[in-house]
Order: sequence, then structure tokens, then C-alpha cells
Amino acid sequence: MEVASVVLVDIFIMYLAARVAGEIFVRLKQPAVIGELLVGVALGPYALGWIGVPTAGMIELFHGEAVAIEALAAVLEVIAELGVIILLFVVGLETRLSDIMTVGRRAGAVAIAGVVLPFVLGYGFVSVVLGEPTIEAIFIGTALVATSVGITARVLGDLGHIRSDEARIILGAAVIDDIVGMIILAIVSALGEGGTVSLGQIGLIALQAVAFTVFVAVAGRQAARRWSAHLDRLRIRNAPFVVAVLIMLGLAALAAQIGLAAIIGAFLAGMVFAELSEQYELERQALPLYEFLVPLFFVITGSHVDWRLFLDGSVLSVALAVTALAIVGKIVGCGAAAYGLGWRRTAIVGVGMAPRGEVGLIVANVGASLSIIPDAMFSTVVIMSVLTTLVVPPILTLLYRGQPTDADAEAAAGATTGGEMDYAVQDGRLPGM
Amino acid sequence: MEVASVVLVDIFIMYLAARVAGEIFVRLKQPAVIGELLVGVALGPYALGWIGVPTAGMIELFHGEAVAIEALAAVLEVIAELGVIILLFVVGLETRLSDIMTVGRRAGAVAIAGVVLPFVLGYGFVSVVLGEPTIEAIFIGTALVATSVGITARVLGDLGHIRSDEARIILGAAVIDDIVGMIILAIVSALGEGGTVSLGQIGLIALQAVAFTVFVAVAGRQAARRWSAHLDRLRIRNAPFVVAVLIMLGLAALAAQIGLAAIIGAFLAGMVFAELSEQYELERQALPLYEFLVPLFFVITGSHVDWRLFLDGSVLSVALAVTALAIVGKIVGCGAAAYGLGWRRTAIVGVGMAPRGEVGLIVANVGASLSIIPDAMFSTVVIMSVLTTLVVPPILTLLYRGQPTDADAEAAAGATTGGEMDYAVQDGRLPGM
Repeated sequence: MEVASVVLVDIFIMYLAARVAGEIFVRLKQPAVIGELLVGVALGPYALGWIGVPTAGMIELFHGEAVAIEALAAVLEVIAELGVIILLFVVGLETRLSDIMTVGRRAGAVAIAGVVLPFVLGYGFVSVVLGEPTIEAIFIGTALVATSVGITARVLGDLGHIRSDEARIILGAAVIDDIVGMIILAIVSALGEGGTVSLGQIGLIALQAVAFTVFVAVAGRQAARRWSAHLDRLRIRNAPFVVAVLIMLGLAALAAQIGLAAIIGAFLAGMVFAELSEQYELERQALPLYEFLVPLFFVITGSHVDWRLFLDGSVLSVALAVTALAIVGKIVGCGAAAYGLGWRRTAIVGVGMAPRGEVGLIVANVGASLSIIPDAMFSTVVIMSVLTTLVVPPILTLLYRGQPTDADAEAAAGATTGGEMDYAVQDGRLPGM
Repeated sequence: MEVASVVLVDIFIMYLAARVAGEIFVRLKQPAVIGELLVGVALGPYALGWIGVPTAGMIELFHGEAVAIEALAAVLEVIAELGVIILLFVVGLETRLSDIMTVGRRAGAVAIAGVVLPFVLGYGFVSVVLGEPTIEAIFIGTALVATSVGITARVLGDLGHIRSDEARIILGAAVIDDIVGMIILAIVSALGEGGTVSLGQIGLIALQAVAFTVFVAVAGRQAARRWSAHLDRLRIRNAPFVVAVLIMLGLAALAAQIGLAAIIGAFLAGMVFAELSEQYELERQALPLYEFLVPLFFVITGSHVDWRLFLDGSVLSVALAVTALAIVGKIVGCGAAAYGLGWRRTAIVGVGMAPRGEVGLIVANVGASLSIIPDAMFSTVVIMSVLTTLVVPPILTLLYRGQPTDADAEAAAGATTGGEMDYAVQDGRLPGM
């Protein structure tokens, strides 16, 4: 009971702080997610120390009692993981494959530009300018590849633009980026472990990832259409929602097992059920899970930030340079690929692709655990992940100032969605603000 | 990522097994909860070993990878804890204080009889018949006191009788039993730790527990009434639901901190919001959390059962005797106190108070961790908790056979609940079947 009752206090503190901060930021006309990340930093082990643990594997006195620190860290990690899975599932529920297809070519171009330019910039800076070893430079390049779609999706949702064209481009491109990033990470990890990686292995990893995504997105949607009639025959209560949750958990676990990020599976599961969402009130039922778990994800992500790193001048200057390259790489690369949408949307796509968030942190953790990157470089990637994440929400907010939201656009188009009153997305926003 | 991705697979397996077993049991006209408990036993570390861990504190190969077993155990423990908190919160949302008040005296009598008789029977058997030390006998007596209201509430909900008079008596009496049981456990633990407990300390523990319950139940309801208008002024989305979840987490954490069970806090939080539930769709929004977490609680509870204990003749005979006393004590004690309700309802109250479930397991764990009770007696308490829990659902199902459900009773009384179509409780059942 010890760990559970300590964690219960932690969860309460995190949820309370997240919601108070969210309320304050909404009143300041900023996305709630910034408030949640900042209270995470403040409550975390490097500041107030009310939640979380600085390092795994050690036992210390905590909340006045001896608790296995590693266990506590694992619990928070799992809660955060479930939170981001729900987040991407809900985003997936709002993303019909046909919608992504209409922006597919553009999303592909944005994704490729968003992979190549940041990787080259990161690799070049660390290898040529800093003169560090090649493997370290490759790792930093890899950390700059993936987009943390969670942050941008949340901000777009908070601002009421999740159904816009640019949002679809960003979501589609981010999914592609994440897949490419995970493939590169898998390859680089194999390189870092000292073994050589054959072209065959690289091909296998890549094939798995692409096959998984295409198979789930296409075949899953077919299956959902064909079998949806059977959902009504199940005797368990709320069977459609239960089955959707099952598929979400299953695809998330499967994606994690084959070396992709769990969130990719969750997003695809949402997409599979997107067409059934309205009929079975899936999104409406997923939203309470979202309200419960997603703010905890952002608080826990924030709590991983050691703000003291920012006080070391040499670490900070390298980190700021890498951060600048990370932002410039995505804005220039993705922006160029998005050329022709008008300056505002082009800028939104570029900026929206910039956050590295937990994906950058994953790469940093892998690199550190394989002893490929030294502590200072680990700090650099952490700072880059945090800064690219913190900087994006206010810039997107500014870029969208005065723009009509999804709901405005739909009202103007005279769109109606039938008799059902969908309270949660009635003005085109995801909940949680 | 290691623990999180292993746990993700565990959660998927548990959820899939729970839902398949639930579907099968519903088709067999049995409560889904039995299926969930049984798959927990089957999947658990003592049988298939697909989920959970046999003992904390050791590191082994698991799912082919080295994982901190303690961390994994802690994660499952927290998920189960959140599940049972949500379960009691939803039960609380259906329990208006005024309803409990109408059966208050009767519930009090049932509770007192349900504390005294089982304690005396357990103490007497272990002390006089088995000749074990007094402190051990006191512990076994304590393990027989508390009622695991979660199991009975779930079965009553599954069967569609959660709003009946006998359900209210059981819920009220179980809350009182839990409070008394926790007070006794706190006192006995202090005794077991070798120190002496002054009457003043006993009084303090008791006072805290009673004050907490009465204060929350009465003052909380007043506060909810007075401040409900302010809920509409909050800018965060779904503010009433968010605030209700906050209060649930806060009271659960507080109850755990002052030495009560977290579920008591969660139940009281639900009661506080019971009158606002319809207006703000609180129950409807809590149900997806219920669908996600509650089946996991029952699977994890089942996974703690070491079925091999049943194979040891001497352990088994003592365990069966204690189990018989546990059941007889509650049926005779609570049944006598419920006398006058008619044989069927009297029997339902007696049987419904019998499960010890996770409360018995908590007492067993405390006793074992303080080295008060030997392994065989620990096994006895575990078997008693499991058997009292497994036996009750089918007996209750039998006792209710052919009886009109809440929905039938309301339809017969011409009751209408306004325009809102409450899909989840439309026939008076809790979801999850």
C-alpha cells in the first residue's frame, strides 16, 4: 500500500496544479498546456521536489517514508505513457484517413524536408563545428528529426484549429517524421551498441514500421467498417467504446514492441475508429479519459526538466545553438515544403513541426543509457526538447490571432453535424483548456 | 521506456482477457466480475505468469528483458488502486446521503453486528481452538471485520439492484464496517509494532476517522450545493467534471494519509457530488474511466491469488474453517440486524456483507509485513478473502432470480427522470457487464 498511497498524493498534487495553472493560462489567453508544463517543472524533483524522482534505482526517504524510488518513477512513467496514448487516440478519432489523403502529398513533402534538414544541421554542427565523434553527431541529428506531435496537437486543439488543412498537414507529416525518426533511432542504437548493422537489418526495421502503419491505416479502416455491425451484438456494456479502447491498447503495445513509439499505434487506432466515432459516441466517451490523464502527462513531462542546466554557460550556449538549429531546420525545411499556402499557414506548419518534446527526451535517454552521448550533450538535447516545446505554443497562438476557428469556418459554411450535440468539440476545440 | 512498454502489454492482455471473460459470463447470466477475477487468477504469476509478479524486491527476466520487478508490481498496484477508487466514486455518485439516512439506523445495526460477531468468531477460533498467540488471533479477527464493498456494489450494479433498499443498507453498513475495520487495524498495527497503545491514541485514531466521514458527508454536501454555481464560472473545459475528479483524488489521498482506506474517501467524494451528478452529467463522464480501470482492478486482485495454497491440506482445512466463520458471522450477524425485511432481503444483506476482498488482503499484508502472522495464517486470510469474494456473486445472483430490477420498480412506479437519456444506468445497472 505504501507506493500506492504516496502516488495517490502525487497524482492529486499534479492534477490540482495542472488544473489551477490551466485555468490561469486560459484566462491569460494562452494554451493550458504551457501552464501544465511549467507547474511540472516547478513541482518536479529539480525544483520543489513535490513529485517525481531525480534518478532511478536509488532508495531514499520520500514523503517521510522509505519508498522504492524506482517504483515511483515507473508509476509516473506509465501514467504519462497512458496520458499521451489517450491524447493521440483522441487526435486520431478526429482524423479521417480521407482527410489526411487530401493533404498526403504535401504532408509527405513536409515530413521529408523536416527529417533531412534538421538531421543535417544537427550532425554538421556537432561534427564539424564542435568536433565531436561521428556517432555522437549522428545521435544529435537523430534527436532533431522527430516531431512531438502531442504538443502541437494539443495547442491546435486548445486554439480550435485541429480540423484545419494546416493541422492535417502537420499531423500527417508528424506521423511520418515519428516513423522515420524511430527507424533512424533503431538503426543508430544498433550502431551505438557496438555491433554493425547490415543493410538487411536496416531494411527489415524500416519495412516493419512502414508496413505496420500502412496496414493498420488501410486494413484497419476496412475491418472497422465491415465488423462494426458485430459491435452491436456484444453483450458487454458500451461494447463499441470497450472495443475501441482495446484496439487502442493493443496497437499502442504492438507499436512499442516492434520498436515504434506507442503513440503511433494509438493515433492509428483512433484513425481506424474515426468514421464510427460519431455513431458510437467514441470521442465523447474518450474525453473523460483525456481530462483525467492528459494533463498528468504534461506535468510529468515538465517534471523531467532540470532547470539548473540552464545556469551552466557552456552547456547553455551549445544548447541554445542546437535549439536554434532545431527550430530553423523545421521552419525552413517544413515551411519550404509547405510553400504556396500563404505566409501564415506556411509559418504555422513550420512552427508546428518544431517541438521535439518527449520524442527528443526518448532519444536523449537512449543515447545516455548506451553511453553514446556525454552528460553535457544529454543536457543539450533535454534543453532543446524543452525549449522547442515551450516556444511553440505562444508563437502558434500569435500566428492564429484573429483567425476564424474550425467552428467559425463550419458555421460560415452552414455545416451541420446532425442532431447530436457534441458538447466536447462544439467549438472545434479539444477539451482540457 | 522499458517498464512502460512491458506494462502496456500487460494492460492490454489484462483488458482483453477481462472483456472476453466478461462477455462469456454475461452470456452465462453471471456477473462479469467473476470472469474478471478468474482470468486474473489464471493470468497471474502463480498460474500462467503472463501478468504481475510473485514477490516484490527481486529482479528477474520477464518478457525476455530485465525489468525491475518491484517497479512493475507498483505500477499494477497503482492501476488497481485507481480502478477501485473510480468504482467507489461511481457508487458514491449513485448514493444520495438522504437515501442512506432513510436506512441509517438499520445500516448502523447491520454494521455493528457485522463487526462484533465475525471478530469474536475469528478471535475465538484462532485463540481457543487453534491455541495461537493472542496478537495473531486479534489479527485474524480484524481481517474478518471489514466488508469489501467494491465486490458487492459491482454485483448489485451488474444485476440492476444498486438503488434498492437492501443495497443502501449494505452500502451504508459497509462504509461503517470499513471505517471500524480500519480503526481496529490501525490500533492492532500499533500493538503489533511492539509499542503499547494508550487509550488516548486509540481515541485519536477513532476520532479522526469518524470526524473525516461525518465532516465530508455533511459539510461536503453543503459546500457542493453552495459552490456549484461557481463551477460554471471556471474557464477550463468540463469544469464540473474536472472539479469532481479533483475532489475524488483529494479525498482518496487524504483518507489514505490519515490511515483510512482510499476508497472511503472516493466513495464520500461521489456522495458529495451525487446531487449534482445529473445536472453536470458527472456519472456519464465518470463511466468511461470506470470502463477503462475497474476491470483492471478485478483482474489484478485475482492475480494476487496463489491457487497452489488450496492444495495444502492443513492450510486448506484451517482456511475453510475461517472462511465458514467469516461467512456465518456476517450472514448471522448482519442478517439478524436486518430482521424484518423478509427472508430474501435479509439473506441478501447477510450475504452481501460477506466478501472481504481487497480489505482482507490489506489486513493480511499488514500482518505479514509486521511479522505478526506466520505464512500459513497469511495464506488462510488470503484464501478467506478470495473465497468469500468468489462465493458471493453467484449466491446473490440466485437470491435475486426473478426479482424486479431497479428499472422495473421505477417503471412500475411511473417514475420519470426528466428529458435526459442516461444510457449508462438506463436499466439501473452499472456498466461493465
